[in-house]
Amino acid sequence: MPKLTAHTITTLIRGTVPSAEQGQFTVLNVNAKSAECVLIYDDSQLRFGGTLSGPTMMTLADAAMYAAVLAHYGEQLLAVTQDFSIHFLSKPAATDLHATATILKAGKRSVVLTVHLYSQQQLVAHASGTYALPRSA
Amino acid sequence: MPKLTAHTITTLIRGTVPSAEQGQFTVLNVNAKSAECVLIYDDSQLRFGGTLSGPTMMTLADAAMYAAVLAHYGEQLLAVTQDFSIHFLSKPAATDLHATATILKAGKRSVVLTVHLYSQQQLVAHASGTYALPRSA
Amino acid sequence: MPKLTAHTITTLIRGTVPSAEQGQFTVLNVNAKSAECVLIYDDSQLRFGGTLSGPTMMTLADAAMYAAVLAHYGEQLLAVTQDFSIHFLSKPAATDLHATATILKAGKRSVVLTVHLYSQQQLVAHASGTYALPRSA
Amino acid sequence: MPKLTAHTITTLIRGTVPSAEQGQFTVLNVNAKSAECVLIYDDSQLRFGGTLSGPTMMTLADAAMYAAVLAHYGEQLLAVTQDFSIHFLSKPAATDLHATATILKAGKRSVVLTVHLYSQQQLVAHASGTYALPRSA
Repeated sequence: MPKLTAHTITTLIRGTVPSAEQGQFTVLNVNAKSAECVLIYDDSQLRFGGTLSGPTMMTLADAAMYAAVLAHYGEQLLAVTQDFSIHFLSKPAATDLHATATILKAGKRSVVLTVHLYSQQQLVAHASGTYALPRSA
Repeated sequence: MPKLTAHTITTLIRGTVPSAEQGQFTVLNVNAKSAECVLIYDDSQLRFGGTLSGPTMMTLADAAMYAAVLAHYGEQLLAVTQDFSIHFLSKPAATDLHATATILKAGKRSVVLTVHLYSQQQLVAHASGTYALPRSA
Repeated sequence: MPKLTAHTITTLIRGTVPSAEQGQFTVLNVNAKSAECVLIYDDSQLRFGGTLSGPTMMTLADAAMYAAVLAHYGEQLLAVTQDFSIHFLSKPAATDLHATATILKAGKRSVVLTVHLYSQQQLVAHASGTYALPRSA
Repeated sequence: MPKLTAHTITTLIRGTVPSAEQGQFTVLNVNAKSAECVLIYDDSQLRFGGTLSGPTMMTLADAAMYAAVLAHYGEQLLAVTQDFSIHFLSKPAATDLHATATILKAGKRSVVLTVHLYSQQQLVAHASGTYALPRSA
């Protein structure tokens, strides 16, 4: 069972991740090991060529990992990204971007996750990374 | 010799990278193999805990790589990030963030780069990645 | 449909990947998008602590990606690893190691894959990487 | 000052990293933050095309990181690779391969490093990674 609801996590992350705070980032579903999120489309996400920018995708991937960490561990807001790696597969169109973050290993000191990013039901990027937990966690 | 000046690259990137467009991102120096950039501090870059957010650092790292690619190849605005990997070393304070991107290999189809991110003269993150060049490049 | 059988790919890879040539590496199953492989246990794979070494896992992961590339594209032996990234999740015991490589994107110039490594049915590492295809491919 | 000499580290690693044990792997120089190593050429390192295999390069990179960790922390043989990421830049010829591993951040729980791999004085690969330290460290 997740320790926090999708709604609570959305509120917490909107309060801490700058790009999420305009209400574009929403956690749709969580369970104890994963979080499904969406980033509502906005013109500011575009780059030259009319597709979503790389940083937009990385920001959503990172926020989705954070959401999965909060769902699993509860309100550990001081959890921070330790490393992050992403492969871009195709250019996402100017529309909402979806992300599913999945915990591969939930340790005491750190958490390893993968993220799949989808645009119009198609996989557009794949990321993996580690979140470090605060010592008290 | 770089193919474009730091000033021209700043203008080009501010026009294409959303987070750069508010005038916070500036290319300070370029040569044929590297670009030195700064992201002027702004409250929207903070995350819980009072330090700069991970996505803020990733966005600057990606923009600095892009700057080095443009300096080396000229106005190849359709160059896109293919893969990106970052290790966060320490939490940057609420102040300007500096980045130096260096080209390790400049190929015909892709470019491999590393980026060092500095806050108050201290290394706070290290990234590496590949930019794919458009076929016509 | 895969372009080569698991048996043919095993023979090809044993002929080209040093650590595979002693007959420890075997492709068990392939389809057009993935390859399932095993590395038969051998004392030389151990490291201090009695678990399989990191390089042993990386070598199997790389060979499994190569197997999936050959299954998809046919005998493109000059395909080479362009980038590779791995997270180690837990220490594998002194026994056979399994790997499943899956193609996320099969392009004309490069292929992006992920690999899941299993020891005793448990996920012990997760990797992702890019193989570059020879120009003639 | 390093806590162990290059000679001691060579002996320790040859005893724990399988591919190093045939005497091909040697630590040439260490200081408190880096280790310079060489892998003596051997036919078993080749892959199809007559160049050194990817796993050969990854194995050397990992061993060089381990050498730098031992130089900095002393005989922490249970330090293990947590994550590892590499970009291959060009194909190394059939000759000795050199590696320099540098510590970017030496923490209490983990160490972040980069590795530069050279063949005939030319940079052929760039890696970065994290070593996790045993709790007692």
